[in-house]
Amino acid sequence: MLTDIEIAQQSTLKPIREITENLGLSEQDWEPYGHTKAKLSDQLVEKLADRPDGKIILVTSINPTPAGEGKSTVTVGLGQALNKIGQKAIIALREPSLGPVMGLKGGAAGGGYSQVLPMEDINLHFTGDLHAITSANNALAAMIDNHIHRGNELNIDPRRIEWKRVMDMNDRALRQIVVGLGGPLRGVPREDGFNITVASEIMAILCLAKDLKDLKERISKIVIGYTYDEEPVTVKDLKVEGALILLLKDAIKPNLVQTTENTPAIIHGGPFANIAHGCNSLIATKTAAKLGDYVVTEAGFGADLGAEKFLDIKTRAGDFEPDAVVIVATVRALKMHGGVSKDRLTEENVDALKEGMKNLEKHIETIQSFGLPFVIAINKFPTDTEAETTTIESWCKSRDIEVALTEVWAKGGEGGVELAEKVIQKTKSDDRSFQRIYDLSDSIEDKIRKIAQNVYGADGIELSSKAKKQIALYEKNGWGEMPVCMAKTQYSLSDDPALVGRPSGFMITIRELRPSVGAGFIVVLTGDVMTMPGLPKKPAALNMDVTEDGKVVGLF
Amino acid sequence: MLTDIEIAQQSTLKPIREITENLGLSEQDWEPYGHTKAKLSDQLVEKLADRPDGKIILVTSINPTPAGEGKSTVTVGLGQALNKIGQKAIIALREPSLGPVMGLKGGAAGGGYSQVLPMEDINLHFTGDLHAITSANNALAAMIDNHIHRGNELNIDPRRIEWKRVMDMNDRALRQIVVGLGGPLRGVPREDGFNITVASEIMAILCLAKDLKDLKERISKIVIGYTYDEEPVTVKDLKVEGALILLLKDAIKPNLVQTTENTPAIIHGGPFANIAHGCNSLIATKTAAKLGDYVVTEAGFGADLGAEKFLDIKTRAGDFEPDAVVIVATVRALKMHGGVSKDRLTEENVDALKEGMKNLEKHIETIQSFGLPFVIAINKFPTDTEAETTTIESWCKSRDIEVALTEVWAKGGEGGVELAEKVIQKTKSDDRSFQRIYDLSDSIEDKIRKIAQNVYGADGIELSSKAKKQIALYEKNGWGEMPVCMAKTQYSLSDDPALVGRPSGFMITIRELRPSVGAGFIVVLTGDVMTMPGLPKKPAALNMDVTEDGKVVGLF
Repeated sequence: MLTDIEIAQQSTLKPIREITENLGLSEQDWEPYGHTKAKLSDQLVEKLADRPDGKIILVTSINPTPAGEGKSTVTVGLGQALNKIGQKAIIALREPSLGPVMGLKGGAAGGGYSQVLPMEDINLHFTGDLHAITSANNALAAMIDNHIHRGNELNIDPRRIEWKRVMDMNDRALRQIVVGLGGPLRGVPREDGFNITVASEIMAILCLAKDLKDLKERISKIVIGYTYDEEPVTVKDLKVEGALILLLKDAIKPNLVQTTENTPAIIHGGPFANIAHGCNSLIATKTAAKLGDYVVTEAGFGADLGAEKFLDIKTRAGDFEPDAVVIVATVRALKMHGGVSKDRLTEENVDALKEGMKNLEKHIETIQSFGLPFVIAINKFPTDTEAETTTIESWCKSRDIEVALTEVWAKGGEGGVELAEKVIQKTKSDDRSFQRIYDLSDSIEDKIRKIAQNVYGADGIELSSKAKKQIALYEKNGWGEMPVCMAKTQYSLSDDPALVGRPSGFMITIRELRPSVGAGFIVVLTGDVMTMPGLPKKPAALNMDVTEDGKVVGLF
Repeated sequence: MLTDIEIAQQSTLKPIREITENLGLSEQDWEPYGHTKAKLSDQLVEKLADRPDGKIILVTSINPTPAGEGKSTVTVGLGQALNKIGQKAIIALREPSLGPVMGLKGGAAGGGYSQVLPMEDINLHFTGDLHAITSANNALAAMIDNHIHRGNELNIDPRRIEWKRVMDMNDRALRQIVVGLGGPLRGVPREDGFNITVASEIMAILCLAKDLKDLKERISKIVIGYTYDEEPVTVKDLKVEGALILLLKDAIKPNLVQTTENTPAIIHGGPFANIAHGCNSLIATKTAAKLGDYVVTEAGFGADLGAEKFLDIKTRAGDFEPDAVVIVATVRALKMHGGVSKDRLTEENVDALKEGMKNLEKHIETIQSFGLPFVIAINKFPTDTEAETTTIESWCKSRDIEVALTEVWAKGGEGGVELAEKVIQKTKSDDRSFQRIYDLSDSIEDKIRKIAQNVYGADGIELSSKAKKQIALYEKNGWGEMPVCMAKTQYSLSDDPALVGRPSGFMITIRELRPSVGAGFIVVLTGDVMTMPGLPKKPAALNMDVTEDGKVVGLF
């Protein structure tokens, strides 16, 4: 069996010029980055305002497991399948982060015959967006420390600086550090730490901004910390929003590439799915909707995190709604939710599968509560038995739920035709009444409670005394009417990663909150959330190389 | 008077495709990065091996002063002038670093009507080379700390790690830090610090590597620190050279842009001129020589640092020699070397000028001792009086030295025609016998002494006890036969920045040494050398912005 990179290297890419021509774009609408990548103008949505929007299909999944669900692969495969049956579809995905590529993952751009290409570039520096975000984030950090070093006119309390430096790397030694040591020439000593770049609020902002003007307004509003009087200090107070925008002027432009079957894909932005909202940029989704009849896009983690945030945060920022949802599940992952351990997943186990279906069931209910039509996609693995796949299909049919077995990893778009046809039907259906889980006018506590009860299936929430104080402070600061962005383990519907399947009778504990005023949401932390990953004992990097004739090895 | 960015924005750029076509390049030889930037193949030198090399003109200067010499501007202007008189010339320059752009400089790509364009891009992220170097540098750092955290099989002494993290930012608070705090999940605590990216040994390596293979070999040899037994630990020991090469596979490709007059310019690499050798990449210079009849290139700081390293380090790595040298001087800077303070430079002062000529005289002697033909370029400022420029001209003529008054800032290539014609004559002259200042077989101490005496005009050198011990250790480790790379103040021929003009009767104090085994030189530190700059009280960033119609302001 070929690896992902071998399949990628065997694929025939069209010149990106040809892809742009097929999309009806003119020379001024895009810039090449190499022969197979392009940046699109960030003003296409405005330029094409009169054109009707294509239909938006959101791909989400059950709670992820180590067995893998293949949500990106299904997203790419569905886009290819739509094109195969004569539709004009565009895929919109997140950009991978270099840290996990070097660490565990080795690559993240779909898989098999449903990949976005050139995968070597997309997984490394791509068009430099993450580097630009790193630069803007760290320019702001340097300006903060310089301001304090140069007399601290704004009266910033060095103990209350919330703005951290970032690096696009898995580097645990930078999680907790002390900076400014070594005397008066080396700044003011204080505790600090690095996050990974995708956890930067600037990444979340870039992904929610409508345009350059909105980007600037949001960046101006970032709260970097507090004064000694505990008043918030913003980027605007430091007067550096112009410089940060300058550093982001190209990063805001969506990136166009293609799949293994030459389907256009816009890959842009990649915010964390815990402390941020976990979907590609709004500009990318909107641009794709102007250029295609169908946009296939995904949200991070399971429907409890990714889809909820897509629907409660991103669709609010962009004032739109999806036309259909795909919920991805695999036999393997459902068996894990039914209690099977990772080393026994290749054995048929219909009972465990049935038990694991409860996880899928909860996510179906969630999508139903948003009032959206949906299709279940079974992402087929070679080890799945017919008894197993039939079990899922029968379960769905008995509930009048559309389901499609997809084989896009092994067969590309061809393996997703049934799914594509069912999704098209769903986008045309009338049984749709989109409603969000909470209103912006709800109190912060009520917003959290509604998500915990209606999406996670919790009995309620428990607020730490710190969280209670923060909620009071944030509402006093005028931050009460923003959406909330839940940071919770992705492995369980609850806040305990060990509780697979569909847990019940649990409470969600709210440890603390963080304001992302520029991004426009309040982050709600349940338990520890790691914002700087570490490297494993044998990092993926150890297998990477470039041969003398320029061939890349070790990405997969 | 228009600012640099206004002139840049008024210039008409040709599509980069047209520039590549004029150079006779085919589609496979280059990749576009936007419509006005390109990356050239890193294999052009090999592909065009049969073609004769163009002549190489090195632009250097007197010791820099706050008055400014305009060495980059003269380099660009000379390239334009050569084209104007019918020669096929290509310019080779360093890439600017984002840190100084955000801090003091606001931009660095020539000036006036002798700029490289698009200056907004070149001064910001450009084609991402510095970001790639940052990533590779920091991936290595993360691997080192991860190795120690995961059991430290190589027995690395955390107190003796020499490899620092880098950031392309002026961030003084990162000069001295403690990492790995916060318990066993956050690594092993140790003292650390960040350098600016251009001070990374990887930058120096990228600029001295002949090709991808050489790059990998050099990176393998980097000494990251020492074991508890004080044995050197290399990148090869950590087995990450393949991953670092993968991160650098595009950064090694030279970048092609154009000047205000559409002269081709290759801008690639930008190592520090103190702890590294301070010139653009060898690949860029070699590629330019294959594509043009003349290559105009510069070396950082004055001839005592930049030219010496170009001639003793870079030409050794690339096995070539320049055909002529241009020494840039300004009336203003020479007056400062003659003792005039910065606020009185607009007043005519022929006596001070004559005194300041001694600085130029010493650099002339240095270039003569290398056996190379040269021309003096007076970079004219509006405040220069005729009496002043005539003084320089007469001084030169009485010594039979070629001199040309250039006005390339105000007039572009037209203002450099006289210089261009004299330079061409010099490249044809027979009075050339290139010889380097020292032999590689000289002891480390002898190499340093020869530079101090013959280039700086010192009486001798004084080695600290630390430096003596290091020299013994390095020679024992087999590092004695590499060139030395002097880190000295750029403001004076001596190691005391206050001693302008041509000081005499001084010693050079050698504080300590550092091995850059991958780059292939021993860094010799005289006094404190700052490898992470700080921001000024009012950083240039405060004036930067992008208007709503996308126009960049605040770069200059």
